[in-house]
Amino acid sequence: MTLIKNRSELLGNSSSTSNREARELALKAIESAIEAVNPRKVITSRVSLSGDILKVDGRSFNLSRFKRVIVVGGGKAGGSMAEAIERILGDRIETGVVVIPHGTRDQYKTERIELHEAGHPIPDENSVEGARKIINLVSQTGEDDLVICLISGGGSSLMCLPRDGIPLQDKRRMTDLLLKCGANINEFNTVRKHISSFKGGSLVRKVYPSTLISLILSDVVGDPLEVIASGPTVADPTTFEDATYILRKYDIWDETPESIKRVLLDGLRGSIEETPKPGDPIFERVYNVVVGNNRLASRAALKELKKAGLNTVFLTSFMEGEARDVGIMLAALAKEVRASGSPVQKPAGIVVGGETTVTVTGTGKGGRNQEVALGAALKIDGLEDVLIASVSTDGIDGPTNAAGALADGYTIARSRRLNLNAEEYLRNNDSYNFFSKLGDLVITGPTGTNVNDISIVIVL
Amino acid sequence: MTLIKNRSELLGNSSSTSNREARELALKAIESAIEAVNPRKVITSRVSLSGDILKVDGRSFNLSRFKRVIVVGGGKAGGSMAEAIERILGDRIETGVVVIPHGTRDQYKTERIELHEAGHPIPDENSVEGARKIINLVSQTGEDDLVICLISGGGSSLMCLPRDGIPLQDKRRMTDLLLKCGANINEFNTVRKHISSFKGGSLVRKVYPSTLISLILSDVVGDPLEVIASGPTVADPTTFEDATYILRKYDIWDETPESIKRVLLDGLRGSIEETPKPGDPIFERVYNVVVGNNRLASRAALKELKKAGLNTVFLTSFMEGEARDVGIMLAALAKEVRASGSPVQKPAGIVVGGETTVTVTGTGKGGRNQEVALGAALKIDGLEDVLIASVSTDGIDGPTNAAGALADGYTIARSRRLNLNAEEYLRNNDSYNFFSKLGDLVITGPTGTNVNDISIVIVL
Repeated sequence: MTLIKNRSELLGNSSSTSNREARELALKAIESAIEAVNPRKVITSRVSLSGDILKVDGRSFNLSRFKRVIVVGGGKAGGSMAEAIERILGDRIETGVVVIPHGTRDQYKTERIELHEAGHPIPDENSVEGARKIINLVSQTGEDDLVICLISGGGSSLMCLPRDGIPLQDKRRMTDLLLKCGANINEFNTVRKHISSFKGGSLVRKVYPSTLISLILSDVVGDPLEVIASGPTVADPTTFEDATYILRKYDIWDETPESIKRVLLDGLRGSIEETPKPGDPIFERVYNVVVGNNRLASRAALKELKKAGLNTVFLTSFMEGEARDVGIMLAALAKEVRASGSPVQKPAGIVVGGETTVTVTGTGKGGRNQEVALGAALKIDGLEDVLIASVSTDGIDGPTNAAGALADGYTIARSRRLNLNAEEYLRNNDSYNFFSKLGDLVITGPTGTNVNDISIVIVL
Repeated sequence: MTLIKNRSELLGNSSSTSNREARELALKAIESAIEAVNPRKVITSRVSLSGDILKVDGRSFNLSRFKRVIVVGGGKAGGSMAEAIERILGDRIETGVVVIPHGTRDQYKTERIELHEAGHPIPDENSVEGARKIINLVSQTGEDDLVICLISGGGSSLMCLPRDGIPLQDKRRMTDLLLKCGANINEFNTVRKHISSFKGGSLVRKVYPSTLISLILSDVVGDPLEVIASGPTVADPTTFEDATYILRKYDIWDETPESIKRVLLDGLRGSIEETPKPGDPIFERVYNVVVGNNRLASRAALKELKKAGLNTVFLTSFMEGEARDVGIMLAALAKEVRASGSPVQKPAGIVVGGETTVTVTGTGKGGRNQEVALGAALKIDGLEDVLIASVSTDGIDGPTNAAGALADGYTIARSRRLNLNAEEYLRNNDSYNFFSKLGDLVITGPTGTNVNDISIVIVL
């Protein structure tokens, strides 16, 4: 594994033998974590074919019972997932369409599955075309067919099919309104699902009565299936009433495009179909399987630390909250290990997964993970046995070229020697420039996967 | 123990048998935590007398070697600590002075130790008189005497002795300037110690060459001895140069009272004495002993949960950061217990200690712990097996009559039925009114001790 591109620089910045050891361990753990959720690997390790028996995460499907196998789906990891599933099923796959971001098709080679490029993070006409191709394909399937759907982050934008009568620009306008009004992610999704013919389980309407296996690489904390790629294969408990209520609650009904108002009002009157609800018989042959998530990555990091002889704890894959405060919290964990051997004795390795947020008030450059590291650095100043690293598993932390950063008990002292005021950098949300000057950014480039963020605390 | 006054109301709010069980457990754990750091109890359990042998936290002092035993000190727990030490040493104590807050003397009964009342949290002339009485007393001691000093939170204000030539009002003005300019607690203390004849180890100059045992009840996260009550018995590594630099750094030198400028400039010139530094021989016979701290309280809570059969983890006594984000973090811990049995299997009890902060932007009423609980409540909505409680061990959370609050998987649903918008209450820093309406404040009244805050996560 040579995932981390500036490994030698990071090791060169070691301040002691034991600090170098901590850095090596952290980098190895990060690489193992990201490698564990490589889209190819998660498909290969959760899906296998033996004779006619397709095993998916412990459940068996006898392929001889199916006439055709069709592969659909989309997301940023779609290309790798498609390659992996072709490698397993080969010419058992009759055909397929998977939607991937513009400019990435050349990286992949598939025989049976068409890789269709579309817009991300803003959907374009290709996104609509991609979703339509998928709908057309699955609409031709019957009871004897098996549809395999590959879902990963970005799928919501890449596969986009507004309800009849809603132009794409109106859908985009609605997205803008929802983002700006302060609606939370659940409210946002409730509206989105009700103006779509694809999201919120709507895809399943077209797949039914075929059997559907949805292989999901989760990019949302806690793996809420209805949220990942807006849940095209998952029942939707929300209603047209909910969607309309949200637009009124945030006082954006008047600004809502006419085409969308019309759909929502038709929905309220019952003249167009609701999204399919939990308990709907169309979900009887639907198998949603999370093949990769933050926990899988976190546990791989943990295993690496354990292998090196550390006493380890995996705390959570649900970490959320303001990045700098999560950094403070990680420091608090390290301090207790040093002071009392809780929750584990030295040498200790603690892994925390999730995704933090940054409330931007400054004008600097940074990312969630870099700010976690900077928040931590200020609290572990002088604790020479402590190292805290935080990275985004997609390799892209905020609008920067770094995956994250590495902080240790020497960070603040080193920054002072360079005349950097760490508190000032934090105040200005300028974590990127801070760690860039120290040479302690962690740089991987885009990794092709995304299961949010991993933070590692090492006390040697 | 009947520390929690609204216990029956809190249990009456149970939403299920198992929720009631979780509530009972949480309240018991909170009571055990606070009881464990009762000032009487911490003195009694760390200090004992057997014949002539005084044992203090494992170290033995032969009282027959000392001519006189003198007790001094101060802090909010001073009255209880004085009573406890009298109960142990009785008429072995020759005399003593301990400074306690105004209006509390009637609660205590001491025979040998004078309880002197003074101002808190703002020092007054009685604070100066109290510090002077102590200095006079210890100045008369010699090599053959033993001085026992009782230190607890509030001591900094209760025992206040500005350097010669600095009127009390100038010292107060300086405190105001430092609080407003954005100096951190270390910078604040650096200046304070250099304008005091008592803080920053200066008391030890007067005690020397007597033996000094300082019994410290820590009200500061991490027990930094030089910070608790401004460390009258602890060496001070900071200098007049540092103090002056800080006033210039925050651009408040010009506003600094003339009397203080004069002292600092004299200090820079070396014409008045520095605070005593680490390694100074006057500290050779000084024994600073932390008799109670957050960890002691946290471990008592943990023990209570363990006794009830829960799988327990004590995470840290160093928790800091924005209160609502710490609440989110506690929720993240509960979610992972439910999802994967990490860091421990259900039924689980996790204890986290420390002290959070609240960045006030709203106009509501609340406290750190109530905001921790509200932040958590929003993230555990619907998780019926989860309960998160957070309390201040002094029983006074922010400017409220509550010690903290209790949140569970039913909190948000119950608040909705009362037409309360939890997010709005949080935005307005109005956690007190939110939990007050739910009847889920935890009310103890002032507990007479303070080792910061304890949060408890229970998943049944």
